[in-house]
Amino acid sequence: MSSAYHSSACILSTGDEVTLGQIVDANAAWLADALTGAGVLPVEQATVPDDVAVIRETVARLARRSPLVVMSGGLGPTDADLTRVALAALVDEEVVVDEAALRALTDMLARRNRTMTDRQARQAMRPRSAHCLPNPNGTAAGLHVTVPAARTGAAWDTDVFCLPGPPRELQPMFMSYVVPALRTDPAISTQTRLLHVLAVPESDAATRLAHLTRRDPSPGEPLLAMTASGGILTLRARIQSRDSALIAGAKLDALEQEVRAILGSHVMGGRGRVGARGEAALASGVIQLLRERDRTLGVGESCTGGMLGELVTSIAGSSGVFLGGCISYANEMKVKALGVEQGLLEAHGAVSEPVARAMALGALRMTGATDALSVTGIAGPEGGSDAKPVGTVFVAHAARDGVQDREPRCDVRRFLFTGDRHDVRQRAAISGLSMVYFAHAVGGASASVRMNWQVG
Amino acid sequence: MSSAYHSSACILSTGDEVTLGQIVDANAAWLADALTGAGVLPVEQATVPDDVAVIRETVARLARRSPLVVMSGGLGPTDADLTRVALAALVDEEVVVDEAALRALTDMLARRNRTMTDRQARQAMRPRSAHCLPNPNGTAAGLHVTVPAARTGAAWDTDVFCLPGPPRELQPMFMSYVVPALRTDPAISTQTRLLHVLAVPESDAATRLAHLTRRDPSPGEPLLAMTASGGILTLRARIQSRDSALIAGAKLDALEQEVRAILGSHVMGGRGRVGARGEAALASGVIQLLRERDRTLGVGESCTGGMLGELVTSIAGSSGVFLGGCISYANEMKVKALGVEQGLLEAHGAVSEPVARAMALGALRMTGATDALSVTGIAGPEGGSDAKPVGTVFVAHAARDGVQDREPRCDVRRFLFTGDRHDVRQRAAISGLSMVYFAHAVGGASASVRMNWQVG
Repeated sequence: MSSAYHSSACILSTGDEVTLGQIVDANAAWLADALTGAGVLPVEQATVPDDVAVIRETVARLARRSPLVVMSGGLGPTDADLTRVALAALVDEEVVVDEAALRALTDMLARRNRTMTDRQARQAMRPRSAHCLPNPNGTAAGLHVTVPAARTGAAWDTDVFCLPGPPRELQPMFMSYVVPALRTDPAISTQTRLLHVLAVPESDAATRLAHLTRRDPSPGEPLLAMTASGGILTLRARIQSRDSALIAGAKLDALEQEVRAILGSHVMGGRGRVGARGEAALASGVIQLLRERDRTLGVGESCTGGMLGELVTSIAGSSGVFLGGCISYANEMKVKALGVEQGLLEAHGAVSEPVARAMALGALRMTGATDALSVTGIAGPEGGSDAKPVGTVFVAHAARDGVQDREPRCDVRRFLFTGDRHDVRQRAAISGLSMVYFAHAVGGASASVRMNWQVG
Repeated sequence: MSSAYHSSACILSTGDEVTLGQIVDANAAWLADALTGAGVLPVEQATVPDDVAVIRETVARLARRSPLVVMSGGLGPTDADLTRVALAALVDEEVVVDEAALRALTDMLARRNRTMTDRQARQAMRPRSAHCLPNPNGTAAGLHVTVPAARTGAAWDTDVFCLPGPPRELQPMFMSYVVPALRTDPAISTQTRLLHVLAVPESDAATRLAHLTRRDPSPGEPLLAMTASGGILTLRARIQSRDSALIAGAKLDALEQEVRAILGSHVMGGRGRVGARGEAALASGVIQLLRERDRTLGVGESCTGGMLGELVTSIAGSSGVFLGGCISYANEMKVKALGVEQGLLEAHGAVSEPVARAMALGALRMTGATDALSVTGIAGPEGGSDAKPVGTVFVAHAARDGVQDREPRCDVRRFLFTGDRHDVRQRAAISGLSMVYFAHAVGGASASVRMNWQVG
């Protein structure tokens, strides 16, 4: 039986905890994204409970769809871990001990001062014809089983890779053992490119990019797709063609130029890493930009309660730029730590333009940074009024030119965010970082950039 | 054809953005959890691309597994929204305009100052025999289609509910229109109960609860399952029986008592809401506890960078307890804002027991709260050393008895967390909140509670 190219793949997650909705399955999306990046098209994801017959049937069904099936979960030591047994049944083989995997497991347990039990030893077993995949990050070995066409009714032998459920075990195992085993058609080159877009409503971007995001481009032309998260749009361009990599790359370049011509400075500089979430890309972009300009950042947070700082410091290396700041959730903290005048609070309320401005200037003083962001708003569900409904948030960006005695600039904007408490807070944090980005990336063009949800 | 009870359900997500891994599908888990709570067992989740033939085939296949299929996505106005067409093909009917849905859509667009286009109008269409489900939170109406057994090869007519992809549209529509339409066997009562466990390693809990978490309990007896997230264990007890609700409830009570007897004060007081994540349950529990004790909370955060504050303020109503604090990411901020002595930093380094203690006491002073938490550590990936490897975090909890001049108590612990930057930060934040919880919930027994990852 010939080995088919891995032109497409199916992803199978197993586990009662997933089918019952006790955990969100992030592995499927990670695997799909990683496969897409490697030039393999994911065509279906399935999730089934810990049930030998169902797992076996589902693997056979998916094998008829694709010559590559990547599974997660069911490799551990408990009675609910049934992947090995189900695959052995599918290929009609006995389960045997893999000596190398058993040695690795014994060593790992010894290092953790735990003893080998019969249950633990199951994790080093495999169907006779299968190969174990080493797992330096956990106790369960992975599996690679080639399921003959005759056992599934497919037109090809199917490669089934079984990976452990914990992402920190699954991801390195995929990169080390699945990626090198992928058989893609050498005549077809796949390239992807990721761009992040700030402060453009999704519906506007959809209209303006409609001619580029048509669903069925000519063969060999790039495909452009858009997703939105927290107000940041992520554009994914992907080309799969028989052209040389150089020509395919030039086509992506042309597409990127067209997108940048349409959306202008709203497209973040640089290109994202495949898989990067918009929020992390923005935080990373802001840090890089400030570092290049030799600037530092401080915060004064009310309704976001620390989310702005959390988002910035989620990026490794942010300590070179981010100094810290104040979570001034109570009004007293705004007065004591940020120096907001009590009179301002009484006259305008904590959620107001003057208070946002005073908080940003206070955060600038408190931290000694060149740039400071403040956020004050009503995240809900309570606390709204006719004049300031839930979702009303003031965001201020104060900046000075590095000279201590010069009057800092301050840009304050009023937003009305939709959604629940989490949405309002996340959009406020993202809008604040976008304001810093625009102020520095396009050389002070910040004031001219109108942002989504901005009012007044 | 008789209408079968909805004893089980399948969940189908559609969309290229999901199969390609561009977004994580959180709807499937939400729907599965909600169905489980309503007494319907979810037996499979499937995710397929925007492809009429594939959607149609998959609905038919799932209909043969379950008399209830809940779908998400594919109801919008674009060419990639194909759910209506696929279902019309499956039931072999034409697609017609639903007058009531069209009126609702026209009104909604008018309120948003947008005009009705042919594309928009698609969202008010349905297969002739289907019913539209109103969507007060968006433009796309939902659908309820009863697919006759003859069209799928199933032994029953299947109820297919199609819901829009955005969670804030999907969730209310599910509660308003799917839940009331569920046909569960009135002789069977289903009850669930959620408990959260702090500071117990998952493997320990698995061993100690092994007799309660056996996979196949006797019919009519409760089933107990455990998941872990960020160091918090969530126990889900579920009973489905022909007993009266009273007897079933008493069986759950007995199970809960047994769990509490085994894990003692590690089980958080009260019972969680179905679907509540462990982190939010902990933050919520800490706020409730402090409010009951008339106490307030402040923070001094270094490596968590605001995550502790963000987690606490994610809970609506936290402003009654949480005052704020300092994100002292740079050492200068630890000195200036929290009053940590420069000499301490020089003698012990920022990641040390004395500095964590000084930060917590400083946060107490700065915020005027009765309780303060500080976190200082090495989240990685850089910055580790032999003496203080990546993952080393000191967490301090300072508390005073409400009398300003009395010396505050301070409990400092050293942890060595595993995992990546995100894991280390999240576990630090959760460990800090757990320390506050133990200190107040069990009356000062904090010192006797040994926590996971704690060293020294």
